[in-house]
Amino acid sequence: MHEDRIDTGRSETEQAIMDATLNALAKHGYADLSIQNIGTEFDKSTSLLYYHYENKDELLLAFLDYVIDLYIATIDRHADDPDAEIRKFVGYLLPSDDEPCEGATEPEIDELEVFQRVIFELRTQTLHDEDYREKFGEMESYMIETVTMLIEREIDAGNYREMDAEMMAENLMAFLFRTLDMRVTQTRPESAEAMRKSVYFLLDHVMPIDGQPGDVATSDVDLDL
Amino acid sequence: MHEDRIDTGRSETEQAIMDATLNALAKHGYADLSIQNIGTEFDKSTSLLYYHYENKDELLLAFLDYVIDLYIATIDRHADDPDAEIRKFVGYLLPSDDEPCEGATEPEIDELEVFQRVIFELRTQTLHDEDYREKFGEMESYMIETVTMLIEREIDAGNYREMDAEMMAENLMAFLFRTLDMRVTQTRPESAEAMRKSVYFLLDHVMPIDGQPGDVATSDVDLDL
Repeated sequence: MHEDRIDTGRSETEQAIMDATLNALAKHGYADLSIQNIGTEFDKSTSLLYYHYENKDELLLAFLDYVIDLYIATIDRHADDPDAEIRKFVGYLLPSDDEPCEGATEPEIDELEVFQRVIFELRTQTLHDEDYREKFGEMESYMIETVTMLIEREIDAGNYREMDAEMMAENLMAFLFRTLDMRVTQTRPESAEAMRKSVYFLLDHVMPIDGQPGDVATSDVDLDL
Repeated sequence: MHEDRIDTGRSETEQAIMDATLNALAKHGYADLSIQNIGTEFDKSTSLLYYHYENKDELLLAFLDYVIDLYIATIDRHADDPDAEIRKFVGYLLPSDDEPCEGATEPEIDELEVFQRVIFELRTQTLHDEDYREKFGEMESYMIETVTMLIEREIDAGNYREMDAEMMAENLMAFLFRTLDMRVTQTRPESAEAMRKSVYFLLDHVMPIDGQPGDVATSDVDLDL
């Protein structure tokens, strides 16, 4: 991600702090995170962290804002080709050759997976903290609203069938998030693979006007993707 | 749940320890859980906890086994009426008048919701602990395999359409778990409601042989449930 990383408009120092926070979260988990172990991942002085952020909580909320900005940057509701934009977004979140390997050790896990694991863990804080609830809600709403708008544009253009665009966006994102969850937890790889097929089934066969309508489990369409 | 609680074959003491663990987890969260605060929720001596379990980790794994047994007890693959059994299971996990209220305080949250919040939080440990990964995988596989078998029985009986039963079970459970996640995190209530509709759309319109095929977002069927 370093070469083609997404620009969220952070200063060089802020970006370095966000990277250090990501690495510290990946290594220690939320429960054992401290400004000290973020400092260890940071190549400048730890005191700079305190200069920018009052405490760990403030730094983590800034990190969540950064995560939101990253997600926002992965999908553009005004893209020229809405269908291609949705597919690009899905492909970014669910790369096909990114099957998590059983027993992979820290250095083998790639940066995107680290990022998704950290978000999965931070999401638990929605149970305890209103700020997290609000920020995750903001991120989810942004993604669903954006996908809804892209779907509506393809319906208007006559490329997608007439449908409840928001409901389709909710279903698509449910399958997508479920794929991510199952990849991150590594509890049932068959479910991760099945859900990825369901995402592409909606994209390839349900949404397009010339797709074969139906649902992933009842259709005769070959699902080997 | 106390009156009609599910019997998982625990002794009275073990059951009391499981209840105390649930309450302590709900109050303190995983990160701040200790044998001491489990003891506070337990009406017998804390030393009894150490008599039964070596340490907190062992107690929590026993708690996860209890959770698995509870889930197993909520659905029976040999039930006389498979469709009714799936609906009973969905109705148990997604009660319709259990809409989480914004800003509800601890005593207002009912026991099922407490239970689901605790499971959501424990699931994060799959990232860090192979035992959790295995137990959650066991629970997920049990549920998907059971729903698959029930669907197959209805296909054989001519009540459900011909379909890939396992794929349909994966989709149904994905919508169901997504509903639970969105209810627990309270980040986007519209998504929780949309996913619940998708669960019932599969049950009412996609799976039954006399249902109207299609998908929740493209069908004309009235979705006010």
